Amino acid sequence: MEITLHSITSARDRIHSAVYHTPCPYALALSRLCGAEIYCKLEHLQATGSFKERGAANKLLQLPEDQKKRGVIAASAGNHAQALAYHGGRLNIPVTVVMPVWAPLVKVSNCRALGARVILCGEDFDQAVVKAEEIAQEQHLSLIKGFDDPEIISGQGTLGLEILDDIPDVDAIIVPVGGGGLIAGIAVAVKAIKPTVQIIGVEPLNAPTLHESLAQGKPTRVAVLPTLADGLAVGRCGDLCFELIRSRLDDLVLVNEAEIARAILRLLELEKMVIEGAGAVSLAAAMLHGTRWKGKKIVLCLTGGNIDVTTISRIIDRGLAADGRLCRITAYVSDRPGSLARLTSILAETGASVKEVGHDRHFAPADIALVGITVVLETRDFEHIEEIKRTLKAAEIQFVVK
Amino acid sequence: MEITLHSITSARDRIHSAVYHTPCPYALALSRLCGAEIYCKLEHLQATGSFKERGAANKLLQLPEDQKKRGVIAASAGNHAQALAYHGGRLNIPVTVVMPVWAPLVKVSNCRALGARVILCGEDFDQAVVKAEEIAQEQHLSLIKGFDDPEIISGQGTLGLEILDDIPDVDAIIVPVGGGGLIAGIAVAVKAIKPTVQIIGVEPLNAPTLHESLAQGKPTRVAVLPTLADGLAVGRCGDLCFELIRSRLDDLVLVNEAEIARAILRLLELEKMVIEGAGAVSLAAAMLHGTRWKGKKIVLCLTGGNIDVTTISRIIDRGLAADGRLCRITAYVSDRPGSLARLTSILAETGASVKEVGHDRHFAPADIALVGITVVLETRDFEHIEEIKRTLKAAEIQFVVK
Repeated sequence: MEITLHSITSARDRIHSAVYHTPCPYALALSRLCGAEIYCKLEHLQATGSFKERGAANKLLQLPEDQKKRGVIAASAGNHAQALAYHGGRLNIPVTVVMPVWAPLVKVSNCRALGARVILCGEDFDQAVVKAEEIAQEQHLSLIKGFDDPEIISGQGTLGLEILDDIPDVDAIIVPVGGGGLIAGIAVAVKAIKPTVQIIGVEPLNAPTLHESLAQGKPTRVAVLPTLADGLAVGRCGDLCFELIRSRLDDLVLVNEAEIARAILRLLELEKMVIEGAGAVSLAAAMLHGTRWKGKKIVLCLTGGNIDVTTISRIIDRGLAADGRLCRITAYVSDRPGSLARLTSILAETGASVKEVGHDRHFAPADIALVGITVVLETRDFEHIEEIKRTLKAAEIQFVVK
Repeated sequence: MEITLHSITSARDRIHSAVYHTPCPYALALSRLCGAEIYCKLEHLQATGSFKERGAANKLLQLPEDQKKRGVIAASAGNHAQALAYHGGRLNIPVTVVMPVWAPLVKVSNCRALGARVILCGEDFDQAVVKAEEIAQEQHLSLIKGFDDPEIISGQGTLGLEILDDIPDVDAIIVPVGGGGLIAGIAVAVKAIKPTVQIIGVEPLNAPTLHESLAQGKPTRVAVLPTLADGLAVGRCGDLCFELIRSRLDDLVLVNEAEIARAILRLLELEKMVIEGAGAVSLAAAMLHGTRWKGKKIVLCLTGGNIDVTTISRIIDRGLAADGRLCRITAYVSDRPGSLARLTSILAETGASVKEVGHDRHFAPADIALVGITVVLETRDFEHIEEIKRTLKAAEIQFVVK
């Protein structure tokens, strides 16, 4: 099957009643932040929290009847698994998912709750794939790959059609790249209808799969480091995807982990959206290159929202520190009554709010009469932190900021 | 001016190009959770993060030209202020906002960034209102109240029209109640078009303003306690609002703080949405009463998303503890090398993941050879915590769970 505008419009007709045409609202605060006119495609509002349903539904609906009865299998630790489990359940197609043993508990239980059979196997993703292939053969199940499949790519391409419907005068679309299925589908659809729209890919620096493949001129395996954008941690992009992307891509941006963390925080705080790292990379790219698109209409593909709440809480704390809105100071004061009271009242005068206080007797400086008191402060910005440092100096208190 | 279906449809025509017709998607995970068919009206996606723009835009557009030139003033610590600042800026109407001195820094800076003049004054909200009235007189500004105003109420009513457009067979709409402007507008619109749709109000137990007023048969001032739903902490509902609500309300639900916190967490985790306490009360009510609406279509009004990120991070931690997904255990072990290693390897065997470890020498039990080691564990659920307790008992380790 060829992947063309026609295969994508057919996919749209096919999945129309099963997959949500997500909204693409204007984002006021992000536009100010990036210096361009920013619109956000809200794929985290899909029933299972990601765009993966588009391809999964399109694929499942086209299986021959006997394969629908026997069922399907996939290896995935995340969104592809949940998308198949949900649409398989809706269509009465048995779904088996092989997940690496370290797969997050919440995703395992989500897949089970959606009616899938879950097999935990393999220390890494490649081992899970091998296991899925074995079971597919033994039990005559159709193996459904996550990205390198014409029906999956055509399904993902429907996202591009929706963007052109809703923001007809879009200038550029920023798309996260893992295996390449989403950007391949979007690029085929959009370049066929309106070739002047720029297609910009984004990859984490820790998983520069497409970047390396473009440099080598062919799909190339790269060593992947851990990344907050775990959904994009794919070692090798798809062969089909690569061919479709290389002639249609206008630019590829790499973003580092701190940039991804900050983008997640900005989406939470400014746009009230919980977006996983793999989706937030598109904002990270716009924050880096916004001025390049001054006055232009940019659509960010926020591809999914499946992030652990414990990760969110860590990102908030680190992001606040990176913004100068949290700081940790260890002050060395006399080990006598009243010195903690003096320190905290000096801090109170600066307008900083004390979140935590800790005493340290073991690692205080050589002077035995001093103790280290570590305070975590809520501050306004870096200027506020400088003001606190000046105040402590003026009060002749020794301290270090960590 | 009378508040009627006509005034509300006129408001819709008036604000149509200025205020976002927010989406109202089906919420799969919440439907499972509540046992009803749940749809969410996503007002946190408005440009300033709340429904308040509807009333504000409708009001500002109807000011006489000379008042538009002189400008408007309001007392508000939150969403009403941001809504006025934004639409005033768009329409070139000068906006002054009086905020109590404790207003969150982020809301103060948002209002300033949107071009409003911000005056910080008053220890509580009532003092800010008095100040706003004074300035309005002195400087001939139009005072714009947050809820008890026909144009504000008519503007908020447009939310009801959108729900009927998008979910025509809705059975019930759950609406947070503070001063009563939103529910009054929605009730007028919806009961005029489709009287069988149930209108359900929700208030925090800590601010049962409408509840008390209904009991007394007239708007009644109540003492308000601090609540996570700070946007609903209004001491007295509006007179106009009360008259419109009393004949149209089908039920009023009260929710406590733990229920609000849990609803915020569920929205974050299951629906990837950052919703402030005042908006999350509608889910809290559905979680309490879901079975009553089994198989029915319920729309939750998620009225806004303006919540501090530091609050989010606290709610995540407390919510996980309330779910049995975090637990803190203090174990008393021998103060000799190897005993911490033994404790942590026993815990590792149960599958719990250690997030924090602390030693306590000062408040250990009477036996001087023992130290208290406090561990914070990530757990699956309460059953998992019980399993950990059984394992520690079998290993003859003294402990307490806090």
